[in-house]
Amino acid sequence: MNAPDPHAGEPFAERLALTRVPFPASCKAYIPGQLYTDLRVPVRDITLTNGEQVSVYDSSGPYTDAQAVIDVRRGLASVRGGWIAGRGDVEHYAGRAPLAGDDGPKSAEAAALQRPPLRAKAGANVTQMHYARRGIVTPEMEYVALRENGKREWMAQYLADTDREQRLRGNAMGADIPKTITPEFVRAEVARGRAIIPANINHPELEPMAIGRNFRVKINANIGNSAVTSSIEEEVEKLVWAIRWGADNVMDLSTGRNIHTTRDWIVRNAPVPIGTVPIYQALEKVGGVAEDLTWAIFRDTLIEQAEQGVDYFTIHAGLRLAHIQLTAGRRTGIVSRGGSIMAKWCMVHHRESFLYQHFEDICEIMKAYDVSFSLGDGLRPGCASDANDQAQFAELHTLGELTRLAWKHDVQTMIEGPGHVPMHMIEANMAEQLKTCHEAPFYTLGPLTIDIAPGYDHIASAIGAAMIGWMGTAMLCYVTPKEHLGLPNRDDVKQGIMAYKIAAHAADVAKGHPGARARDDALSQARFDFRWQDQFNLGLDPDTARDYHDQTLPKDAAKVAHFCSMCGPKFCSMKITREVRDFAAQRGLAETDAQTLGLELKAAEFQRHGGRLYVPVTPVE
Amino acid sequence: MNAPDPHAGEPFAERLALTRVPFPASCKAYIPGQLYTDLRVPVRDITLTNGEQVSVYDSSGPYTDAQAVIDVRRGLASVRGGWIAGRGDVEHYAGRAPLAGDDGPKSAEAAALQRPPLRAKAGANVTQMHYARRGIVTPEMEYVALRENGKREWMAQYLADTDREQRLRGNAMGADIPKTITPEFVRAEVARGRAIIPANINHPELEPMAIGRNFRVKINANIGNSAVTSSIEEEVEKLVWAIRWGADNVMDLSTGRNIHTTRDWIVRNAPVPIGTVPIYQALEKVGGVAEDLTWAIFRDTLIEQAEQGVDYFTIHAGLRLAHIQLTAGRRTGIVSRGGSIMAKWCMVHHRESFLYQHFEDICEIMKAYDVSFSLGDGLRPGCASDANDQAQFAELHTLGELTRLAWKHDVQTMIEGPGHVPMHMIEANMAEQLKTCHEAPFYTLGPLTIDIAPGYDHIASAIGAAMIGWMGTAMLCYVTPKEHLGLPNRDDVKQGIMAYKIAAHAADVAKGHPGARARDDALSQARFDFRWQDQFNLGLDPDTARDYHDQTLPKDAAKVAHFCSMCGPKFCSMKITREVRDFAAQRGLAETDAQTLGLELKAAEFQRHGGRLYVPVTPVE
Repeated sequence: MNAPDPHAGEPFAERLALTRVPFPASCKAYIPGQLYTDLRVPVRDITLTNGEQVSVYDSSGPYTDAQAVIDVRRGLASVRGGWIAGRGDVEHYAGRAPLAGDDGPKSAEAAALQRPPLRAKAGANVTQMHYARRGIVTPEMEYVALRENGKREWMAQYLADTDREQRLRGNAMGADIPKTITPEFVRAEVARGRAIIPANINHPELEPMAIGRNFRVKINANIGNSAVTSSIEEEVEKLVWAIRWGADNVMDLSTGRNIHTTRDWIVRNAPVPIGTVPIYQALEKVGGVAEDLTWAIFRDTLIEQAEQGVDYFTIHAGLRLAHIQLTAGRRTGIVSRGGSIMAKWCMVHHRESFLYQHFEDICEIMKAYDVSFSLGDGLRPGCASDANDQAQFAELHTLGELTRLAWKHDVQTMIEGPGHVPMHMIEANMAEQLKTCHEAPFYTLGPLTIDIAPGYDHIASAIGAAMIGWMGTAMLCYVTPKEHLGLPNRDDVKQGIMAYKIAAHAADVAKGHPGARARDDALSQARFDFRWQDQFNLGLDPDTARDYHDQTLPKDAAKVAHFCSMCGPKFCSMKITREVRDFAAQRGLAETDAQTLGLELKAAEFQRHGGRLYVPVTPVE
Repeated sequence: MNAPDPHAGEPFAERLALTRVPFPASCKAYIPGQLYTDLRVPVRDITLTNGEQVSVYDSSGPYTDAQAVIDVRRGLASVRGGWIAGRGDVEHYAGRAPLAGDDGPKSAEAAALQRPPLRAKAGANVTQMHYARRGIVTPEMEYVALRENGKREWMAQYLADTDREQRLRGNAMGADIPKTITPEFVRAEVARGRAIIPANINHPELEPMAIGRNFRVKINANIGNSAVTSSIEEEVEKLVWAIRWGADNVMDLSTGRNIHTTRDWIVRNAPVPIGTVPIYQALEKVGGVAEDLTWAIFRDTLIEQAEQGVDYFTIHAGLRLAHIQLTAGRRTGIVSRGGSIMAKWCMVHHRESFLYQHFEDICEIMKAYDVSFSLGDGLRPGCASDANDQAQFAELHTLGELTRLAWKHDVQTMIEGPGHVPMHMIEANMAEQLKTCHEAPFYTLGPLTIDIAPGYDHIASAIGAAMIGWMGTAMLCYVTPKEHLGLPNRDDVKQGIMAYKIAAHAADVAKGHPGARARDDALSQARFDFRWQDQFNLGLDPDTARDYHDQTLPKDAAKVAHFCSMCGPKFCSMKITREVRDFAAQRGLAETDAQTLGLELKAAEFQRHGGRLYVPVTPVE
């Protein structure tokens, strides 16, 4: 912290060049609370060229609000400060004294942004789960309910029992999704442990969101420097960039220098929950020597990060000494960083994991700040041929046991999952998690369905992510094209997020999440109507869609043309369809045509059953 | 054809700059036939740095064979010429006289490459299905069998009944995949109509391949100029580029000028089957006015293209007059170009489709050249909310009826499918096709699982493609990032193919195709061993993988480093795993650890069953 900041004197906002341009034809709107009237839940309203408006879930925070004044040196405005204070169960305190090693050995950046921390008063438990179990609907819970519903101006259509909606009805795969999310429903889900609202009391800037299988499927993006490359400035802009494109949560996986300060900047500027893997920093503090880790150092790191406002901690407490042997026959052993650190510690000391042994001590810290557990899958498979093996399921079983312990303390908990799982094994993996972990939210990395796509693992894993999301996973951790190869840059982060927004939305549509298909329908209608601008603006990435269209047909006139470059003006099928419709309207297609067809279908059905009037009891080959 | 060629005098090969560089660490090898000793089936052998060799399926043709001399002005060397002539059932004939309109109104290119055509002798039927049904194993069938098996040096492992293989055993979803593909198996599948070998007798350059649910899942790439952009030179290089990255089939969807000549260049230089949609050219011939189409013009176009060597025709004969009404309530009507052309024709004339009415006349042409049907889905859904609707299934039903008719003539047949289908409706769509079309191979476009991803529809559709491939689809038609927006360029074609290679391979792994996982295992082993070069070279796209690694760690030393940029040297989990293994080997982890764990798991299982020693007969909630 002593070396001079080479950018001292420059306005930080300029250096960062935060991406703040609003989405095209969009404006930020806020839904007011009803139980809590100071609630303002953000949505993005897209205005179409035909005057309609489509409202979409918005994770981008104040950065896309043209009205918001943002100074990254001060951090975002408080959203939750009043609610937290209003509960009367927290107190300011001096906080842990900074240590020389907090930022690693080579710190050279501006001072941290840390505010005086809060913690629960003695004997208090400040978790959302604790409130929920006492029947309290918190502002966070109402916020989440309003956010999940969005502006359901279109809902009537999707809840109607028309032929179309019956045909398209989702298959919720055991989820229990109500037509409207009420604050009480959110409370009940949190109380039961089936959903979490990661919301550290030291993260007042947070716009609350829920992770649970009865809510929209969420995605997480990882950012973080490393020992090899990257800088703090890049990390904050990566956060802004990631949430712009739809990351619901962000994990800060920094491992290099300035690890503490980087985290300060990120949390203070984050409207989304921030997760970390505290063992990474703890390991830094012991010079990277896993066997030198101690409970004291780890505990101190948890408090350090809880005071900063981290919303969830990945903790690999399920990897036990006895599990390690189970990985001996694996093709790729232990691929989780945290898992391998703990495995090494257990092996060298030949002792049970201190994370497992101190699990209830950890719960005490979690509940003093409302940090949620993301119980790490240290033994997740690192390749297809290690999928669903004894090592993974043994650890998962322990995670289920720890979930019960965490819930005893009313600590919110989700479970991390693989990794690499071929398609035909995904359902079994999901079923094992639901059963073993008592429906605590599942949070999976992919899974990757094949191993041979380095450079395209965002796609190989989006396939698995979409499927497992449909089957019950609550949050999907993204994978970028650089997975297995290098650190993602700005474009890689966006590519990874896009692939995962697609997977999550595909899951929502398949589950039949109310209203999920509304945006698809609006976009398809725009496509059919040749409303090109609306088609772009309703998409997940208007910039790229518009750019691709420009590459083939750059003229502005083409944006209103009733054809596109794929068929050209003569062949356009949609144009011909319109002509067919007009022609039919003019001339009137005989009703009998359709009736005739119906009869033919019935006749063919009859033939298929062997020409007999009754299907025989013994099937004929 | 009269305007001067601006490149006259330049060597064509130079102008085209065909991509001929072999894949890294790879060489082309050929598996000899046993029944037919002149058979040479190509595979690509990848040599690893540890001396092992991995052999992979190779669709790239002679272009990646450093030994092959290729002159695009003459076309590729004949592969099948001797086999076709040897059957004694074909004859040369003058062929159809070229017409002025064959190349459209504005031809301006070099002369076509066409050779004197062959056709079946009077009364003969030269389809692979006809031979198969008479019990004849053709060279094409042995070729396909050898190609599907590849070099199964690894097969023993995957066919063994080890614990690992039992755990990972695929779920074939009703497919019937033998451990080894024999020529007789191929014959039986073709005879039964469950597989096709698209192989026009006028396409001797073809390296035969099979499309069927009991074979590897194949992919198709579309190329083609259009009225708006593109040139012939680009089209041939697009073919070479597409098969390099793994396209098993290519459809030439050209609609613009020089349509006939472009096709000549493509077929003569294609080692893969080429498909077309003849109605596109027929429509050009009538100036783009759908209602001016006649059976005579369409028939002439079929013969024109059959003489050129096109291997399969998309024919929208299943769209009947009476179906059109069923699209009235759709959100996006008819989105198939061929479908909309036929719908317009039917409406204007208020008559049954001439394709439907002349279907057996078409069969007569198909069997004289062995052109396969790809029965078009003119009523495929164009958006999620039109999926699996009455219009689509009514047409599918007609396609099943036409399949029976085609099979009566021993004409090989596959069925085209959607399109846009949310995940939860894919299985029903596949089931309907299998039932209705008597297991004729399904050939689907995607399907796209959501509509809101313009710019990323290769990903939105790869999810659906992987799933439907697993469930029984035999060939997946790719979608590029430009879908719905513009014409794909070189990079878009590659992106689309990569997404679909991933989908097809994920399907093969899930189905448990013998040996499919071998390449994944080899790559994952290389990853674990820090054999970076092998990891790149075993991937679907070595260039991109290497490039991504270079972006973060450009030094050559990093290619042998025992860490990567993601964790850096201190944290590498794989490195730690190795240390754990070494440590365990040195010190010896007590056997009892694992035993203890096993007992714990058993105890927990016991608890799960209510603490009773026997699971009660009546399940307890």
